[in-house]
Amino acid sequence: MADKEELDSLCKRRGFLWPSSEIYGGEAGFYDYGHLGARLRDNWERMWKDFFLGLGEHYHMIYTPNILPYRVLESSGHVDHFSDVLVQCKRCGNSHRGDHLIEDIIGVSAEGMNKGEISTFILEKEIDCPDCQGDLGEGEDFNMMFDLDIGPKGERKGFLRPETAQGTYMNFAREYRALRRKMPFGLATIGSAFRNEISPRQGVYRLREFRQAELQIFFVPEYNQGSFAEAYENLSTKKIPVLRAGCEEQKKMSLDDLDDLPKFYRYHLGKMFEFYSHKMELSEDKFRLRELSEEEKAFYNRIHFDVEVDMGSLGGWKEVAGLHYRGDYDLTQHQESSGQKMSVPIDGERKVPHVIELSFGVDRNIWALLDLGYITGDRDWIDLPVDIAPYQVAVFPLMRKDGMLERSREIYDLLNSCFNAFWDKSGSIGKRYARQDEIGTPYCVTVDYDSLEDDTVTIREISSTDQIRLKVSDLKQELWSYINKEKVFKNNN
Amino acid sequence: MADKEELDSLCKRRGFLWPSSEIYGGEAGFYDYGHLGARLRDNWERMWKDFFLGLGEHYHMIYTPNILPYRVLESSGHVDHFSDVLVQCKRCGNSHRGDHLIEDIIGVSAEGMNKGEISTFILEKEIDCPDCQGDLGEGEDFNMMFDLDIGPKGERKGFLRPETAQGTYMNFAREYRALRRKMPFGLATIGSAFRNEISPRQGVYRLREFRQAELQIFFVPEYNQGSFAEAYENLSTKKIPVLRAGCEEQKKMSLDDLDDLPKFYRYHLGKMFEFYSHKMELSEDKFRLRELSEEEKAFYNRIHFDVEVDMGSLGGWKEVAGLHYRGDYDLTQHQESSGQKMSVPIDGERKVPHVIELSFGVDRNIWALLDLGYITGDRDWIDLPVDIAPYQVAVFPLMRKDGMLERSREIYDLLNSCFNAFWDKSGSIGKRYARQDEIGTPYCVTVDYDSLEDDTVTIREISSTDQIRLKVSDLKQELWSYINKEKVFKNNN
Repeated sequence: MADKEELDSLCKRRGFLWPSSEIYGGEAGFYDYGHLGARLRDNWERMWKDFFLGLGEHYHMIYTPNILPYRVLESSGHVDHFSDVLVQCKRCGNSHRGDHLIEDIIGVSAEGMNKGEISTFILEKEIDCPDCQGDLGEGEDFNMMFDLDIGPKGERKGFLRPETAQGTYMNFAREYRALRRKMPFGLATIGSAFRNEISPRQGVYRLREFRQAELQIFFVPEYNQGSFAEAYENLSTKKIPVLRAGCEEQKKMSLDDLDDLPKFYRYHLGKMFEFYSHKMELSEDKFRLRELSEEEKAFYNRIHFDVEVDMGSLGGWKEVAGLHYRGDYDLTQHQESSGQKMSVPIDGERKVPHVIELSFGVDRNIWALLDLGYITGDRDWIDLPVDIAPYQVAVFPLMRKDGMLERSREIYDLLNSCFNAFWDKSGSIGKRYARQDEIGTPYCVTVDYDSLEDDTVTIREISSTDQIRLKVSDLKQELWSYINKEKVFKNNN
Repeated sequence: MADKEELDSLCKRRGFLWPSSEIYGGEAGFYDYGHLGARLRDNWERMWKDFFLGLGEHYHMIYTPNILPYRVLESSGHVDHFSDVLVQCKRCGNSHRGDHLIEDIIGVSAEGMNKGEISTFILEKEIDCPDCQGDLGEGEDFNMMFDLDIGPKGERKGFLRPETAQGTYMNFAREYRALRRKMPFGLATIGSAFRNEISPRQGVYRLREFRQAELQIFFVPEYNQGSFAEAYENLSTKKIPVLRAGCEEQKKMSLDDLDDLPKFYRYHLGKMFEFYSHKMELSEDKFRLRELSEEEKAFYNRIHFDVEVDMGSLGGWKEVAGLHYRGDYDLTQHQESSGQKMSVPIDGERKVPHVIELSFGVDRNIWALLDLGYITGDRDWIDLPVDIAPYQVAVFPLMRKDGMLERSREIYDLLNSCFNAFWDKSGSIGKRYARQDEIGTPYCVTVDYDSLEDDTVTIREISSTDQIRLKVSDLKQELWSYINKEKVFKNNN
């Protein structure tokens, strides 16, 4: 269980993450990725792409702008519906999110309450301003999109996108043609999204500018379910940690047990599980797939599970991803508003494809890795998957003399051609191990006096701190095999 | 020389690039990257990172937000100075950029003219509205930043960043500490930037939302010039195509000939040249390093060369990158405005480091690759560097029968584990070659009847269309060697 303050301090000191524009006192809801955070994020995104684009023969990345014209978000429903209930204090003027006030102060869920319900509840329960104990005003709808004017005369309104998905939906028809009319096909994107949160809080968890990785899979249910159902058979007995809507407790269930859900949905639940279990290497008691109730989920989502991770620094279970079966809502909306055809010909008829969306908050996932990975005590270290760690291997000379410095540099150059390697010649060897522990470098190679005699080195593994001796000529190959999980260290978990 | 219409049409049809929000009629100045454009962009960015982060021992990526608080851009000078002269037509109301009007209609450069000068010029030369021939109004300053309100009460103003650099400068002091006080060090970033252009035009060349790749190198001239000067010696006789300020014609000059410029600047000019020549593989008569005159360059730039590429689709030489020696301007501005120390201790004194900025327009560079690479005639194909092409290799069965289909799929799986491979089983073999030519896939592998007998395949190279036969067991290794430029095809350029 990571302590938020300790983790924040590590992140700032070593170069992972910190509040933006800090030298000017900062601006709530914006974070910078320092040089180690940038590596972690790049590595996570590469892994995400490899895994999720690998799910389908015709799955591809696309990139679309952050700024969208007014009409797009009017059609998608965001202009009318993308709002939170804002409650302002009559005395100090501070703004609060109505549902959060109720959840924080009374401890009940206010998910799905409208402004009238929230106002009544605040009045009945006599909730005051948490900042000054003043009286609170009526709830009002506050649209969370950042709006701006496009062009010099300011007559064309636009928004910063509140999610990456709409840019993808608008490209459905063009990509359907460019990809030679294959179904199902998938379009993924990774990029920024923007929400003018009433009160951003909890570090990178609720940001005003954040990063999403989303995959939209387009398919025609009557026609394409078969291929998903076939792939499903390999996963059917897989047990995953699930919390069903209306249930109090999560449990491990096989996908076959979830037989009220269509197979194409269960297949993707299984794949989300695999990503968190096998790729991010989260322990199975630390994440779960939670089904949202009718009140909680958006009206266009027919089925909605979130991936939640139990994060000590954030006080418990927090959403980091979601699997949304959106039906034909999005393409139908854009078809109606734009007048452009979004249907595909199937057996002599035209059908508007359905969408299943796999949506990930990049910053939240990076934070989850740090939160669950950070282990303090006798030794502070971060337990990260080898291929996500900022550096895979560090190389040290035991001392700077007698040729050890030069030899360690040669070995660094050798390893840096295939891995992300780091070379450190300063400080005691213990200090150098500690520095790498603290940033999650899984392997440290040390050149010592024996190295100069027999061209061997020691290699130390982070979790066990065990060391073995290897020939320099075997080093690359051995490191490859560790990264590919043929692990030789006894305590390696 | 690519024809703009033909190239646009190819880009739309095959999945490279097209105007955003097209189904709603589009919004000028915004472009989408389709599935092939996204691959090209990802590959270019990876190559850029590899090359430029490779220049320095302590060069790293960081990522900072698109939204910046008002104070940051006030300190950087953008609030006061980041404007173009806007001229509005009194009759039709259309807006024009004053300098572009003068350049387009009279054919002289209006770079650096202020609003008064532009108004006078328009009056004297009797320039009318190009849209309706109406009278034009007085020139006025139009700030090109998109502004927005942060927070629910709209009292805090912010901007979308007009360049990625400011976020990097604000992280100077924190990264200096996190990177253990090494000098010189470099911070690079790749991300969006936003300019509310008065009249965006020329496709991806002048966008309202675009992408930058920038490397800021921090150094103390009195102290760190030596290391650059040493590295410079390896490049000193390199001849590069240069157009000096005040000269009419460009010529090939060795870096030693540019001896009025400091060596650290010449070193980076040489590296920019290498990137365009060796990595992007542009022919040396198609790009040049053009020095900006005192009137053209920003006041804080002590030395400024642009990289310009001669693009047929855009009517000639266009800027795609720049090398800016900004001195201590940026850190001094932020130090004064924020009150935070931006100096480093050197020999008992504190010095504010200087910045040399390597700045690249990602979209413009992608377009340059397509423009210079697109060759039409008997055969339409794109000549792209092998490691940037969306796919490195395509695999075909000659026919779908007698096991060729299955064998080609096995070979595709084999190659796709190391390269970006594409499998195509539909249409005549000539059509399949043509499809790959058109998207710049350098190698095509075909499984034919002989393949089934002796496990060989043909491999065809895009520029020569020459084919040779290879054993399947040698295929991976041979492709590696082609990609590493040990070329075997006789006409390969």
